[in-house]
Amino acid sequence: MPDAEIIAVGSELLTPQRLDTNSLYLTDQLNALGVEVVRKTVVGDERERLTDSILGAAARSQIVVLTGGLGPTEDDLTRDAIATALGRTLVFQQDICDLIEARIRAFGRKMAAINRRQAYVIEGAEVLPNHRGTAPGQWISNNGVVFMLLPGPPGEMKPMFEGQCLPRLEKILPAQVIRTRWLRTVGMGESDLDQLISPIYTRYKNLATTILAVSGEIHIHLRARCTSAQEAETLVARASAEIEPLLGDRVYSCNGDSLEKVIGDLLRARNASLSVAESATSGLLGGRITAVPSASDYFRGGFITYSDQMKIQLLGVAAELIAEHSAVSEPVAKAMAEGARERTGSDYALSITGYAGPDGEKVGLVFLGLASPDGSEVRRVQWPADRERVRAFSTNIALDMLRRRLLGIQ
Amino acid sequence: MPDAEIIAVGSELLTPQRLDTNSLYLTDQLNALGVEVVRKTVVGDERERLTDSILGAAARSQIVVLTGGLGPTEDDLTRDAIATALGRTLVFQQDICDLIEARIRAFGRKMAAINRRQAYVIEGAEVLPNHRGTAPGQWISNNGVVFMLLPGPPGEMKPMFEGQCLPRLEKILPAQVIRTRWLRTVGMGESDLDQLISPIYTRYKNLATTILAVSGEIHIHLRARCTSAQEAETLVARASAEIEPLLGDRVYSCNGDSLEKVIGDLLRARNASLSVAESATSGLLGGRITAVPSASDYFRGGFITYSDQMKIQLLGVAAELIAEHSAVSEPVAKAMAEGARERTGSDYALSITGYAGPDGEKVGLVFLGLASPDGSEVRRVQWPADRERVRAFSTNIALDMLRRRLLGIQ
Repeated sequence: MPDAEIIAVGSELLTPQRLDTNSLYLTDQLNALGVEVVRKTVVGDERERLTDSILGAAARSQIVVLTGGLGPTEDDLTRDAIATALGRTLVFQQDICDLIEARIRAFGRKMAAINRRQAYVIEGAEVLPNHRGTAPGQWISNNGVVFMLLPGPPGEMKPMFEGQCLPRLEKILPAQVIRTRWLRTVGMGESDLDQLISPIYTRYKNLATTILAVSGEIHIHLRARCTSAQEAETLVARASAEIEPLLGDRVYSCNGDSLEKVIGDLLRARNASLSVAESATSGLLGGRITAVPSASDYFRGGFITYSDQMKIQLLGVAAELIAEHSAVSEPVAKAMAEGARERTGSDYALSITGYAGPDGEKVGLVFLGLASPDGSEVRRVQWPADRERVRAFSTNIALDMLRRRLLGIQ
Repeated sequence: MPDAEIIAVGSELLTPQRLDTNSLYLTDQLNALGVEVVRKTVVGDERERLTDSILGAAARSQIVVLTGGLGPTEDDLTRDAIATALGRTLVFQQDICDLIEARIRAFGRKMAAINRRQAYVIEGAEVLPNHRGTAPGQWISNNGVVFMLLPGPPGEMKPMFEGQCLPRLEKILPAQVIRTRWLRTVGMGESDLDQLISPIYTRYKNLATTILAVSGEIHIHLRARCTSAQEAETLVARASAEIEPLLGDRVYSCNGDSLEKVIGDLLRARNASLSVAESATSGLLGGRITAVPSASDYFRGGFITYSDQMKIQLLGVAAELIAEHSAVSEPVAKAMAEGARERTGSDYALSITGYAGPDGEKVGLVFLGLASPDGSEVRRVQWPADRERVRAFSTNIALDMLRRRLLGIQ
């Protein structure tokens, strides 16, 4: 099996502020094909250093993935450096220039002269169309080494890799079949979860198990690599069947679906509607619920009540309740959810009120409410975390409360 | 001034789960000394590849910082690889072994035989004591290249760098100072912006300019490296004073502050309040405004009105207006903003209504409303982008409309 190297190009990635995170995605994708990443390099927008990095990688590895440096400006040098390293010329392609111009025009802008730079293609390269940006990618095979030139922005790089590079790689790599399963869980810590399931997955050969903590959720990735599809499917199914019972109702999806997708599907199947009342998260829960296309099938909307006055006025929370218990309390969370449910006429309503910090004695304390046709409930949680994480974790718990209610899990 | 490279050692850093974050800290420290980091490499626990990386770095740069691979196990190979690369021997030092043993004993444990490996020192190296762990660091000077071997855990690496490496580096480096400035802009494409300002920044020697596209905004980073602080400050101020007028009111911050921080400060200074009415973004604008601590000083809350019914009911938008113009229209955006302003009693209100997609003819079309004490305005934008970016870009434009109104910019 060939080895791969990843080169991230961009002087900003050599500052104290920025990391190359594209390589995590690329490593995951390459690993799934059975390809190991043996080195990662970050190099700045500097012609000689970049050319030198490319030559080094090509001498060691059979797959070289480059991200970044495909923009229109003087310091976007990846095309030039690859051409120099391989001793090939750059050829201007009018059809690509026309596509770039059309794309910029669609944004209501005029193409700048420098954008023509992006229409130069390395002699003998295949052009990889970019449906999310102006910079096309390139695929070049040279002396047994494959080079992929991909744009830096993850939103452009990922679809290009999946749509253009994966099919090409599958053609040239030895046939191996990979079957994967994603178990996604919420409500359990990473170490506890690992302690519970590691006796199982360590027994399986040919099964790669990855445990990922993602914004308060734990995702388990099982990957079997075999010479036949049946063998790989059997292996991943058997391991999963041993692991799932240990995690029980903490598993919310087995196919990689997000929590907001799962609750959306549950609501749609029940022809039920949802609304929100958010204080600490101030819209993040609503934003997350509607990250799923067609969320309008079940999501009505709701209230961002950042001040006490808004809780009273928009949700009908009694002023005395806030005065007696404070705005971050069980009774207020309950009244918020019930107020949202009543005022939007939705079947279900979720509320979040808490102290996101960064300062204060009770920072990290959050109350989450759920109002439903069968009555209301409130959960109290507290995390020793920063503002951003307290807010993200809160949306997990709120969505999980709704999932459990919809599925009749206690 | 010498250049530096950073090599992070560890196979776990070549998985899809882990990033080398030590390099951010090290880059910051080295930059402060006037040293530029010209390449970062991640390499696994593999003897030949590691030795090869060390030789490559030593041939290019005068400072090589290695993190990780100093542990006691078989796959901790940094000491061996450096010794091999430099053709030096490893010498067992009993006094260091005694220190390691004492440290382990202090934790109530017995030293394992393998910990003896950590007491081997490269011939001619200075030992860097580790007050936070067992693995001592090493400092070696070889043919004009300085090598620093530092432990991987940040809690051990950082104090060792500051306590042991900084004083040694200050002795050998010429005195230089770095000054930086971040200009953040919204409402202009990367190519157009670069075309406008590149004639300026390319004229400046000793000034490194980086242009970054971040979620629909463009950030410009200017960095001057000089022998005196005054010189560096003058240089960065002069370049900035030439660039800023070209970008004009598109620059919303010169110190790295986010757009939501800038509008928050403007509102607070005016003792003014804000509310939102969100359809396509469904809470993301509210979530972004409150990402800033103490946003409660000026942010009241608002409405998530994902359905027509909610726009009518919660915001008082006339049903006829929606019937006549559709929910994604200038009059509805205006009515939404005015409804939010009136119903929350805030001074200002922002509204967003649009087609985020992924499907439909008008996908990417968004109307943004601003209601204020001086009347209302609406902006129409359209992006040929995906759901996630249409929603993110919309929050940029909404916040920028408010910034312009607060500053009296047309």
